[in-house]
Amino acid sequence: MSASLGAELAALLDSERVLCPVPADSPYNSDTAGAWRGLRGSADAVVLPERAEEVAAVIELCVRKGLPLVPRGGGSGVSGGACPTVGGIVCSLERMRSVLALEPGLWRMRVGAGLLTSEVQRLANENGLLFPPDPGAAEQSQIGGNVATDAGGPHAFKYGSTRNWVTGLEVVIPPGQVLQLGGDNRKDVAGYALHHLIAGSEGTLGVITAVTLRLIPRPEQALSLVAFLRDRAAGCEAVLTVLGSGILAATIEVIDGEALRQIAGAYPGEVPEGSGFALLCEVDGGIEQTRCDRDELARALAEDAIRVDLHDVQEPLRRWRAGVSGAVAAVYGGKVSEDVVVPPKHLKELLDGFDEHATAAGLQSCAWGHGGDGNIHATVMLDPEDATALKAAEQVMGALFELAIQLGGSISGEHGLGWVKRSALGLQYPPQALALQRRVKQAFDQSGVMNPDKKLP
Amino acid sequence: MSASLGAELAALLDSERVLCPVPADSPYNSDTAGAWRGLRGSADAVVLPERAEEVAAVIELCVRKGLPLVPRGGGSGVSGGACPTVGGIVCSLERMRSVLALEPGLWRMRVGAGLLTSEVQRLANENGLLFPPDPGAAEQSQIGGNVATDAGGPHAFKYGSTRNWVTGLEVVIPPGQVLQLGGDNRKDVAGYALHHLIAGSEGTLGVITAVTLRLIPRPEQALSLVAFLRDRAAGCEAVLTVLGSGILAATIEVIDGEALRQIAGAYPGEVPEGSGFALLCEVDGGIEQTRCDRDELARALAEDAIRVDLHDVQEPLRRWRAGVSGAVAAVYGGKVSEDVVVPPKHLKELLDGFDEHATAAGLQSCAWGHGGDGNIHATVMLDPEDATALKAAEQVMGALFELAIQLGGSISGEHGLGWVKRSALGLQYPPQALALQRRVKQAFDQSGVMNPDKKLP
Repeated sequence: MSASLGAELAALLDSERVLCPVPADSPYNSDTAGAWRGLRGSADAVVLPERAEEVAAVIELCVRKGLPLVPRGGGSGVSGGACPTVGGIVCSLERMRSVLALEPGLWRMRVGAGLLTSEVQRLANENGLLFPPDPGAAEQSQIGGNVATDAGGPHAFKYGSTRNWVTGLEVVIPPGQVLQLGGDNRKDVAGYALHHLIAGSEGTLGVITAVTLRLIPRPEQALSLVAFLRDRAAGCEAVLTVLGSGILAATIEVIDGEALRQIAGAYPGEVPEGSGFALLCEVDGGIEQTRCDRDELARALAEDAIRVDLHDVQEPLRRWRAGVSGAVAAVYGGKVSEDVVVPPKHLKELLDGFDEHATAAGLQSCAWGHGGDGNIHATVMLDPEDATALKAAEQVMGALFELAIQLGGSISGEHGLGWVKRSALGLQYPPQALALQRRVKQAFDQSGVMNPDKKLP
Repeated sequence: MSASLGAELAALLDSERVLCPVPADSPYNSDTAGAWRGLRGSADAVVLPERAEEVAAVIELCVRKGLPLVPRGGGSGVSGGACPTVGGIVCSLERMRSVLALEPGLWRMRVGAGLLTSEVQRLANENGLLFPPDPGAAEQSQIGGNVATDAGGPHAFKYGSTRNWVTGLEVVIPPGQVLQLGGDNRKDVAGYALHHLIAGSEGTLGVITAVTLRLIPRPEQALSLVAFLRDRAAGCEAVLTVLGSGILAATIEVIDGEALRQIAGAYPGEVPEGSGFALLCEVDGGIEQTRCDRDELARALAEDAIRVDLHDVQEPLRRWRAGVSGAVAAVYGGKVSEDVVVPPKHLKELLDGFDEHATAAGLQSCAWGHGGDGNIHATVMLDPEDATALKAAEQVMGALFELAIQLGGSISGEHGLGWVKRSALGLQYPPQALALQRRVKQAFDQSGVMNPDKKLP
């Protein structure tokens, strides 16, 4: 097939934007689920379109040939959503990175789906504005991928996830239609909110080719604190203290004892003796207000904390927090990390239960994440070449998903289900709700070519 | 059919919660589109369920008999969405008004769809929290109806519309399935975001029976200003001044000269001589910050304003602003009022064009609304019994819709399309996008019983 497929694709795009055949070790054969846990697929071809019409032509070909189409952003997803697990054509949006419209006075921009998240943030910032979503790999991830996964991050606590900042999308759906869903305006109830549905659909409904984002004025200042606590119980209680303070913090992040141990050396300051948990809290807004709010939070937390540090400069602390993921992966070279959600009042039960399951399986674990949202990155540290450990980790994660659901939670807060968690959706939704999800997929993708075997069981 | 239908329904619900036949003058035969512009339908029966399972049984009957099912909240909608225009069974949620869970420490509540919006707001407030959406008829509208229409209001400028505050919905879909879509958590990307799709679907996909809302800490204080401006040009420029100020206002409301004339007498203060436009702006947050922000806005607006008034007490001003709609309707007893959206930079073009069209048709018009969102209530004042005026008004509105689309806007910012605007959707979306909308509806409602002839053309 390969030679004829390559030729057919080259007739649709310039031949230098078609890769066919695809070497087995091509980065397009995996995403961060490959780096973390060894997941790899095998694409028949990779295309790098520059226009939505080219995407439409490729989808048309996929429908005609019954080939899967796997959309790909920056490849920073950790659930294997961009991994060509059943072959097919990988459609990478990396060349579609134009700024199509930037209107600071109207607090909005329209950009190609392939623009880096960090570029979106920078453009907003340079114009006195803020694009709040801050997922973990902003220098690698693309805005289209952020929308497709409804990416979160620390600031999702105050500002909501990526979906919340999208007013319109250009999307290509089978059998090759370029559609504008939603628009450029902040308010619009004409038609169904299909752009809200595309957000978080992980490439299973269509390919996002352009995104209109709403923005807000950049807060004058952000200030942080770090509360070091003795143990998990005190740490989880501290999350509830912040929630009960009456202050709308911008972030409420948590790092458990084991994760803290791995990154203690990099802390901008000194982690106090006896720390078994850390809570990071940022407030943002006007100059006076942020001082007041942080002081109040620091007072509320001081009672049970070993120490509360105030940080007036944010970058070193944000970098430190962002470093947890890499530091933990570096211990044995890989990790299995899932992003379950529970109501914050059940955080301790979740962390206790996860710890017990991992320990019983003989695995080393840790946890950190977005405490205010109850969204935890529960992580087993392992060697991605160690098949026995990987299998044991999968079982621990299965138990974790069940526990999260029992506690009134969700199996995924921001990573999406992709390939690695698709089977777990049945834990959260009964058959009738799953059947509805499948019918909705069919409304977009009758032929089933869009990222098959992802998101839905 | 009536006698047997009544008996069949009485077997599903207590007979005192079934109205069959329905008197022609029953309030269930219309909504606010009846009061404003004389739209009325003719229901075969009205049911008042108390449990989702009763709703399911009624939908099952509708599917079996091929009868339309028209969900109804408080009846405050102005687009005829709850009007039984093609007969069928009106399903009023008014008895499903329980508070199912209230967890102030987790900033959330779960309530029956029939709970009044004002009750939701009050419950939040009494617990130190805020439910920000503030549509116009909070004492009449129900939270389920607010979700179904994705209701907005002045504070949608800072806080987004109702959808933004919904994390989960209990929904009943044909042929009679009770489903939980989304959940109780602030973050959740498992499955498609079908609750976001139900929001704004105007009862065409299913009946919302319960709603989980996220809340935030109540701001310490809100402060307002009113800038009186000479004319429309200065008023529209003032909106851009606020947007360019770097301050995230909570509301940016506008009232044009004619609307201002109708409510000048009720203003808490005195409207200065020569005022041809008013801009109302609220800021909320901490005590110090709100003073700073308002002072800065007042300074920015003072240059071109006739006068800028500062209001430290919000209720009288909010009541005054909320009174525009009624005052304008009272002039001739009715109105045709549509809620188009344009980018704020095109506000003046929209208002000029609307004025010209209305004047050419010999109609008296005015406009007000949510200037920061570019969402204007463009209104023709008329006698709802005057068929000639009504017909002329419809034509003016048709021209208004076209103008809004030409200017990059939308035909509806918050009222929804219901019955009165459903045909206009084709102005905003091309046939392929409309076909996709219809396929999505079919994924929920294969039999087509859910509020037919609404929302979609």
